[in-house]
Amino acid sequence: MEYTKLQQLQTTLQHQQLDVAYLSDPMTIKYLTGFGSDPIERVLALVVFADHDPFLFAPALEVEAIKGTGWPYSVYGYLDHEQPFAMIATQIKHRIAQPSNFGAELNYLTVTRLRALQDQFPHAHFDVDLTPTIERMRLIKTPDEIAKLHEAGKWADFAFEVGFNAIQLGRSEQEIDAEIEYALMKKGIMEMSFPALIQAGAHAAEPHGETSSNQVQNNQLVLFDLGTVYDGYVSDASRTVGVGTLSDKQKDIYQVCLEAQLTAQAAAKPGMTAAELDKIARDIITKAGYGEYFIHRLGHGMGMSDHEFPSIMEGNDMILEPGMCFSIEPGIYIPGFAGVRIEDCIVITEDGNDSFTHTSKELQILER
Amino acid sequence: MEYTKLQQLQTTLQHQQLDVAYLSDPMTIKYLTGFGSDPIERVLALVVFADHDPFLFAPALEVEAIKGTGWPYSVYGYLDHEQPFAMIATQIKHRIAQPSNFGAELNYLTVTRLRALQDQFPHAHFDVDLTPTIERMRLIKTPDEIAKLHEAGKWADFAFEVGFNAIQLGRSEQEIDAEIEYALMKKGIMEMSFPALIQAGAHAAEPHGETSSNQVQNNQLVLFDLGTVYDGYVSDASRTVGVGTLSDKQKDIYQVCLEAQLTAQAAAKPGMTAAELDKIARDIITKAGYGEYFIHRLGHGMGMSDHEFPSIMEGNDMILEPGMCFSIEPGIYIPGFAGVRIEDCIVITEDGNDSFTHTSKELQILER
Repeated sequence: MEYTKLQQLQTTLQHQQLDVAYLSDPMTIKYLTGFGSDPIERVLALVVFADHDPFLFAPALEVEAIKGTGWPYSVYGYLDHEQPFAMIATQIKHRIAQPSNFGAELNYLTVTRLRALQDQFPHAHFDVDLTPTIERMRLIKTPDEIAKLHEAGKWADFAFEVGFNAIQLGRSEQEIDAEIEYALMKKGIMEMSFPALIQAGAHAAEPHGETSSNQVQNNQLVLFDLGTVYDGYVSDASRTVGVGTLSDKQKDIYQVCLEAQLTAQAAAKPGMTAAELDKIARDIITKAGYGEYFIHRLGHGMGMSDHEFPSIMEGNDMILEPGMCFSIEPGIYIPGFAGVRIEDCIVITEDGNDSFTHTSKELQILER
Repeated sequence: MEYTKLQQLQTTLQHQQLDVAYLSDPMTIKYLTGFGSDPIERVLALVVFADHDPFLFAPALEVEAIKGTGWPYSVYGYLDHEQPFAMIATQIKHRIAQPSNFGAELNYLTVTRLRALQDQFPHAHFDVDLTPTIERMRLIKTPDEIAKLHEAGKWADFAFEVGFNAIQLGRSEQEIDAEIEYALMKKGIMEMSFPALIQAGAHAAEPHGETSSNQVQNNQLVLFDLGTVYDGYVSDASRTVGVGTLSDKQKDIYQVCLEAQLTAQAAAKPGMTAAELDKIARDIITKAGYGEYFIHRLGHGMGMSDHEFPSIMEGNDMILEPGMCFSIEPGIYIPGFAGVRIEDCIVITEDGNDSFTHTSKELQILER
């Protein structure tokens, strides 16, 4: 690993006249150091200085794994009965006797932990939020990151193929999910980027419902929303397929959602705003009379997670730039009737965009 | 759902002279309301008052699911482009024009969100941390919760059976994991409480490593650490089995770890402290000469998650009481050689404890 992003952050600290950055979001730590681990309630921190080498602070049982990544700077471990913030403070003071200005990711840092840090440095300021700095860094993906996102996307396409083949009348959403995840795990893809969502019939009208024991019946729309993790980068895609004979209304909501998705995806390019892109899809659905059933934003940024920036929604005037990655996922959810969502994640390129997933979006009707 | 815990919290607010409690840990919300959902970066909050009915505030797409749980109080949804904290403040002010004292879970609440709330109520105090109040409530499990933990434990026992049967020479840790999770999903158990850990040979000396493409070989110890989620409650257990012929040292670390585990589990009862229990296991391992290789606490509390209280470790003088649930999981990890961990989670009873898992802990040697 080259640690160029870490050096970039050091330069930022110098410009912002910050002595110390306390970073604790595991995604940020993985992004800057290559070391990925969720410490749950334990303390994992990357401490970066304007004018000194950074260090990692971690649970003792993570220290060997950190060294194994080739991390060239110091790493300090702590045992469960030790006081992590006192130990971190000792290491900081070893480098800067009296640091004045700290930056931290205030969108991630808890109040308790900020107060624990403040107790160690009662005269220092903790006003600067580094969340926007880190988000801005992570917003524009490098070619290496984009390659990983394409690879993660291939596994989502593979998952759709397995999932569509697994559809049988009377088979539950959970059983279909089992086939998908088993096939992925046998290929070494052990982690979904979020719990796969498979919803048949009216169940799909709950856009954040769960994959359940609900069984696929004839003449239903079945919604799949899933993603995999590949080398720390995620995929996220949705497809909706028909089983048996669909009614005109089922077909209509599918075609309206598809038109919204295809039109927005074809339009996404540098120079437009996130809000403009949302509006392209939303106008199509609204014009067709289903506006009240499209109850979420058009898309979310993604990369190491599927909740990054940019948010593709009304009110977001962020201008799209090459290297930004996000979902385009219009949906129509009619309670008690059916739900449709069609989604690809894309990267903005110099003159348009590339999709990470390629499973056909034309309405597929399966005979079972 | 009876909402007795919610009423109990209201009484606590009255005693602590708090006007409003802002609760946002999804586990707490599930515990108090029965509604479980991870809003990721969106805002999900339970607002409880000393003298008014509580309300839930959630992403619009969660509102139907909340109503579906039978939640008898108000629920307000917000759309992605709306300002959640302004909307929450409006609802609070609708009930109390000028609240003075807020409580919140400061171990969970981020600095950004605390500041967003403070902006809405610039004259109010946000000093009271409700984390200990909630932790204390969740610390003592009800009979209903204990029943769910036993059920989750049964599925961990099932997973071990599948996993041991799946061991073959040359099969990877990941392939064994695939068999376990597939078998569970086919039974409708869709969620592991954490990524299952299967580690063969020297790989098991990394206690927080990951299940990998490392293949099982003859004459190895293979470590399994896994758990399932059942109706919102977790299991968590570890077993280590031998494959082929084990060396005296492999057998020795197993037997020492087993003695530590069995002795501690037999000793766990009301009235002793968490630290005393940790010491019982640690002394056995230290006396046998492996103290330096037991690099984590003896156990962690569990229930809705596997990172609750009490923490079974040096320095924790919390007295064990009936209804407390936690793991007893000594381990010996010798880098480059092997790792052993043996773990059951238990509930403290009136005169001892009950285990949630029952898979044999005697050394099993598999011939493959």
